[in-house]
Amino acid sequence: MNASIKSVLFEKMNAKQDRMIEIRRYLHENPELSFQEEKTAAYIADFYKDKDCNVRINVGGRGIVVTIDSGKPGKTVAIRADFDALPIEEEADVQFKSKNPGVMHACGHDGHTAYMLILAESLIEIKDSLAGKIVVLHQHAEEVPPGGAIKMIEDHALDGVDNVFGIHVMSQMETGKLFYRPENIQTGRANFHVKIQGVGGHGSSPHKANDAIVAASYFVVAIQSIVSRRLNPFDVGSITIGNFDGRGSFNVIKDAVLLDGDVRSMSEEVRTIIEKEIRAKLDGIAAMFDVTYELEYENDYPVLYNDPELTEETISHLKQTTIPELKGIELCDAQPPSEDFAYYAKERPSMFFYVGAAPEEGEAYPHHHPKFKISESSLIVAAKAMGSIVVDYLVKGE
Amino acid sequence: MNASIKSVLFEKMNAKQDRMIEIRRYLHENPELSFQEEKTAAYIADFYKDKDCNVRINVGGRGIVVTIDSGKPGKTVAIRADFDALPIEEEADVQFKSKNPGVMHACGHDGHTAYMLILAESLIEIKDSLAGKIVVLHQHAEEVPPGGAIKMIEDHALDGVDNVFGIHVMSQMETGKLFYRPENIQTGRANFHVKIQGVGGHGSSPHKANDAIVAASYFVVAIQSIVSRRLNPFDVGSITIGNFDGRGSFNVIKDAVLLDGDVRSMSEEVRTIIEKEIRAKLDGIAAMFDVTYELEYENDYPVLYNDPELTEETISHLKQTTIPELKGIELCDAQPPSEDFAYYAKERPSMFFYVGAAPEEGEAYPHHHPKFKISESSLIVAAKAMGSIVVDYLVKGE
Amino acid sequence: MNASIKSVLFEKMNAKQDRMIEIRRYLHENPELSFQEEKTAAYIADFYKDKDCNVRINVGGRGIVVTIDSGKPGKTVAIRADFDALPIEEEADVQFKSKNPGVMHACGHDGHTAYMLILAESLIEIKDSLAGKIVVLHQHAEEVPPGGAIKMIEDHALDGVDNVFGIHVMSQMETGKLFYRPENIQTGRANFHVKIQGVGGHGSSPHKANDAIVAASYFVVAIQSIVSRRLNPFDVGSITIGNFDGRGSFNVIKDAVLLDGDVRSMSEEVRTIIEKEIRAKLDGIAAMFDVTYELEYENDYPVLYNDPELTEETISHLKQTTIPELKGIELCDAQPPSEDFAYYAKERPSMFFYVGAAPEEGEAYPHHHPKFKISESSLIVAAKAMGSIVVDYLVKGE
Amino acid sequence: MNASIKSVLFEKMNAKQDRMIEIRRYLHENPELSFQEEKTAAYIADFYKDKDCNVRINVGGRGIVVTIDSGKPGKTVAIRADFDALPIEEEADVQFKSKNPGVMHACGHDGHTAYMLILAESLIEIKDSLAGKIVVLHQHAEEVPPGGAIKMIEDHALDGVDNVFGIHVMSQMETGKLFYRPENIQTGRANFHVKIQGVGGHGSSPHKANDAIVAASYFVVAIQSIVSRRLNPFDVGSITIGNFDGRGSFNVIKDAVLLDGDVRSMSEEVRTIIEKEIRAKLDGIAAMFDVTYELEYENDYPVLYNDPELTEETISHLKQTTIPELKGIELCDAQPPSEDFAYYAKERPSMFFYVGAAPEEGEAYPHHHPKFKISESSLIVAAKAMGSIVVDYLVKGE
Repeated sequence: MNASIKSVLFEKMNAKQDRMIEIRRYLHENPELSFQEEKTAAYIADFYKDKDCNVRINVGGRGIVVTIDSGKPGKTVAIRADFDALPIEEEADVQFKSKNPGVMHACGHDGHTAYMLILAESLIEIKDSLAGKIVVLHQHAEEVPPGGAIKMIEDHALDGVDNVFGIHVMSQMETGKLFYRPENIQTGRANFHVKIQGVGGHGSSPHKANDAIVAASYFVVAIQSIVSRRLNPFDVGSITIGNFDGRGSFNVIKDAVLLDGDVRSMSEEVRTIIEKEIRAKLDGIAAMFDVTYELEYENDYPVLYNDPELTEETISHLKQTTIPELKGIELCDAQPPSEDFAYYAKERPSMFFYVGAAPEEGEAYPHHHPKFKISESSLIVAAKAMGSIVVDYLVKGE
Repeated sequence: MNASIKSVLFEKMNAKQDRMIEIRRYLHENPELSFQEEKTAAYIADFYKDKDCNVRINVGGRGIVVTIDSGKPGKTVAIRADFDALPIEEEADVQFKSKNPGVMHACGHDGHTAYMLILAESLIEIKDSLAGKIVVLHQHAEEVPPGGAIKMIEDHALDGVDNVFGIHVMSQMETGKLFYRPENIQTGRANFHVKIQGVGGHGSSPHKANDAIVAASYFVVAIQSIVSRRLNPFDVGSITIGNFDGRGSFNVIKDAVLLDGDVRSMSEEVRTIIEKEIRAKLDGIAAMFDVTYELEYENDYPVLYNDPELTEETISHLKQTTIPELKGIELCDAQPPSEDFAYYAKERPSMFFYVGAAPEEGEAYPHHHPKFKISESSLIVAAKAMGSIVVDYLVKGE
Repeated sequence: MNASIKSVLFEKMNAKQDRMIEIRRYLHENPELSFQEEKTAAYIADFYKDKDCNVRINVGGRGIVVTIDSGKPGKTVAIRADFDALPIEEEADVQFKSKNPGVMHACGHDGHTAYMLILAESLIEIKDSLAGKIVVLHQHAEEVPPGGAIKMIEDHALDGVDNVFGIHVMSQMETGKLFYRPENIQTGRANFHVKIQGVGGHGSSPHKANDAIVAASYFVVAIQSIVSRRLNPFDVGSITIGNFDGRGSFNVIKDAVLLDGDVRSMSEEVRTIIEKEIRAKLDGIAAMFDVTYELEYENDYPVLYNDPELTEETISHLKQTTIPELKGIELCDAQPPSEDFAYYAKERPSMFFYVGAAPEEGEAYPHHHPKFKISESSLIVAAKAMGSIVVDYLVKGE
Repeated sequence: MNASIKSVLFEKMNAKQDRMIEIRRYLHENPELSFQEEKTAAYIADFYKDKDCNVRINVGGRGIVVTIDSGKPGKTVAIRADFDALPIEEEADVQFKSKNPGVMHACGHDGHTAYMLILAESLIEIKDSLAGKIVVLHQHAEEVPPGGAIKMIEDHALDGVDNVFGIHVMSQMETGKLFYRPENIQTGRANFHVKIQGVGGHGSSPHKANDAIVAASYFVVAIQSIVSRRLNPFDVGSITIGNFDGRGSFNVIKDAVLLDGDVRSMSEEVRTIIEKEIRAKLDGIAAMFDVTYELEYENDYPVLYNDPELTEETISHLKQTTIPELKGIELCDAQPPSEDFAYYAKERPSMFFYVGAAPEEGEAYPHHHPKFKISESSLIVAAKAMGSIVVDYLVKGE
């Protein structure tokens, strides 16, 4: 479909591949933590200088919204790339290793930004062939809730947008392939913080105290029954207490314990059940042990939902498009992590999909691993696939 | 003290020793369960026929109250012997084995009654030497709550009584010795019955059910923390779930579970704490698991409290009395079982003490054991000790 | 495909619809429990008398294997219908209510058998148009492990068979539609029986006993962590303790507890993990509480696996076949119950699918419910769909 | 008994009362932490300069052993006073408040040392009236295990000693009274440190990790059953986990948890049971959760055992002695804390008793409280009671 326009677009991007790699490596060497991406944001904004597009900076924080207007009426499609890095000390054996100690692009957002910049530049160059508008969402702070997406949406990043598309490169999926799944595709997440307050005392007189460590331990044991008994076994849910801070002296009965927890689910229904049950378990602990509790419970990233019609249509079009580097398009399983692209998908029918990026050589480390690496040849696949989608979308939109 | 009166009394009882053994063996062969002691009660009442005393039968059930009146003004002392047996199939190798299948005097109440009858007969014979009155309490149903004591008290058995004395023969304490302890001497007891109601369902769909076995198991685990954390370690307390009825089909989630429990304590304060905490744990389980519960909680026998002044004075007098068969009077530890003599002790300053009755040969089995045996030579010790107490009490009382 | 042969087959079955309903109602009125289906088996065998087919009875118990031989070389396809009923007292308001108190066709096996007999008779009539052989598996005892399937397989029911097809009518799926899913489609199942042996004793002396109810309760609490922490949240697993038999007297510490449990899983991997973890939890309980345990652990029905190629091809053919009563063919979710068709599917590439049978009026009660009902118009859909599959299979097989 | 010698001794001490108070206040103003009592030890040693006794310093650390030799053959009695302070910021409203920030004599050891110095000086002055030897044990580091007592014993402080006596002033017992108890009088103690090692991982994939917080919480819950089910309810035992260090990030499954615990018991038998059971619970957790553990388990202060004959004889003598300030001698309950005098009592028949020291005015705060205070008039009671014991002991010993 729209083969000739795509052909022009792809040629342009072929010619820019070296720059794309350079950009990616530059970003990789200069990673910045979520909500602190000052230089990265400036770098991106600078990229668009003197280009025929509208650039809005500091959107919902450090987000950058680039609007490419064909000048013709039509639909508006948003395409998103995130650009923050992680608090990890890089151990990968690459020549363009992180120069910022303890910070690393260990999730591929450098690749996302690199392909997106090249794609955006190329789309600007062919925008006369299109109708409607393209909104490029350069998003900060995907890794840390509340995340950049919700802030950018609040700051009008989706105003006038009809649909949103996003890509994640995946270090353990085969390079050269795309992977997709309709409907729920990444887990929703919540986090909570509990203080369980008892009464301190001396180990020789437990009856005069009220042992917060005992109460908190019963709580941890009690919540195991939520996943095992309150969820449909066919549903997905997980609860982790990642922090149990009951530090104290061995012979002093602890007065209070702090717990921090993480919740994953694959449907809003499960998310609701888990929150209700955690509260019920805490109420039960309070009644059982005469302790009090303070709970902060925050639903952060929602379940990421791919609109099934949009997904089916988009995949169908992609399958009919010739991309030389693309070896296959496959249905994949839902993915365990959470992703704040989900906020866009709650606002507009959207589609988020995966571009295989397993290194051609060596072990394929998981995301967030100090030795994480991607195949750079995945970037042109991402650029062409997303470019193809935009072309089909906007030409169709005429 | 009062050596000549005691001497007469002891002589009379020496002469009746064979009859005392006969009575004991007759009762041993014809045991009756608590609240079903029809023939035993008739036997006792019959014993007093034509004797110079007042006999009131069916007191608070099958209790018998025998009043021996000296005809002179003075104090009134009650002495108590219980006469019910246990639902145990006897395995002891005695010639006078139980003739009632599944019923056995495995706690020594046959001995209590035998010595008491002989003592009462002898006291009747010497009553002119005394002042005041003796009330003999032949009590039914000590073994099964609510017990005979409370019923006899409600039926005026203690009217006019100043103090109460009681004895228990002890199969694992040395024959020939008495054992005593002031203040709390036997545990108080409570029992409870809980129904935990969830929702039944199929094992493949736990989320549609609400598993009562899981809730009840968490309850059993939760109550372990009562003794471990809510009681003063220097106090005595114990909670047992003796019945967990969660019978069902392996693949059907159970809708309801029945639990029966037993509570022991050595002070009313601990008893109060345990009841409060069991209720708290159930409230907690209800909140945690969205189940409901029905609790029947019954405090049965209280902690048995020996009046310290009465005990000190009585033991002091006994130590000054010559009883040839008596080898020693010793302070002993508090005893784990419960005893409804405690009800008398709540009403009047009382004293309950132990007469060693370990068999001279063979193993000394514990009370309630199918091979339980007592040394019959303990009975004359009991008779003389209690007789001595009565004499001192009533002569003093002039 | 093969439209003319199918057309003849469908016409024949249209003409036999009344008989099909009669058969179904007769079976419904005369249900027999698993492994006790004496009259049902005789009825089925009798149906084939004087028909041009080979009938082998008492296959692996009460199974009946009917071979319809086209006389021409080709493949052999097996089609299976089960015929046992359930221990349920019927409460459905139908005129052909169960005549056997406490026994009911509450899972639709009456319908399975009725459509299968009519289909088999019709296939015999058109067998000259086909090549190869049809093996009709009339299976007893699907409801109760170890089930009839494995016994029939051991008794050579699949000898020479290439593939197996099976259908289940579904009371809560829309009548007129078929539902399918490739790969894992129904859960595997295991059951286990544990005796936890402690030491009995008296509630006043817990230290002399070893409380089996406490140990068993900790076990129930411990296994909650298997599903919550040892399984991939994207996997399916469920563990139920349906029987907790710790019956005893309230004040006697229980010496032993019996537990019966049920395990569901959607993959053999999960099944293996759960068994390993249950054993680990028991080892842990034994070490913790100094109890012993005896475990009988039996994997019964495996995960039911639909061969994906066979499923895709079969569904593709069905979609190209005109069946007037058929309103749609839809992908469905995996189903929670277990089904011993899984044994056939382990032996041969197989496909098991669903025929919607929701009543046109009134509430659609779930399977195994006393008010369970199916729409009888589902039977012709089942017959034609299965007939179409056989025709395509055997004509293709030429 | 020995009234005239005692009379001389008491007169001497009456005359030194002001100095005794001065010494106590000096020590109170200059507290030093356990194992750091440099100046206190020097002060004590200096006190004995030029006195007719043998002083050995740095015994087992900072201990001081003073031998007062009557020059005549006889027995050797040791009397002990400890002199270390606590890490507490004083809040008591006294004029001689601690000058060392964060350090306080909040347990009365200043009083112990003050009365002991005056008593020792006085005994030196009357030593010709006595026979045998007096060994004064000025002990450092009572508050912190392993404590000074065991070190001093290892350094020969008890060589030649027949019996040991010790006193503790008690801020919540009535001033003017002595309190005693034969046999077990203060709890034994143990402490333990456990590392539970699982496998870290991400909250979205619990099956790839092995959650140490969950394992440790089940451990805390499991050990509740030790006191509740493995101890005789008439025994004393307590287990506290005072430190549960499972600090981590909310969404990262914790790899390891550190626990520190405290154990109290009133008999060596219970101490043995608790250690065995804690190990069993850890073995169980390891088996259940496939974690490993490292346990350091250290029995520190033993149960303090008063020799019953020595106690009875000593109390009997004291009751026959006229001490004007002494209002009563009473049997008391066993005491919850632990005390390293227990080590002396394991080596020699010993007696440790209490001197009431409740302030005449204001609230009687417990030991180790920032507002802890004692009545200084308790010191002369302590000095005379201990002096009386020494006199009886050594005169008797002739």
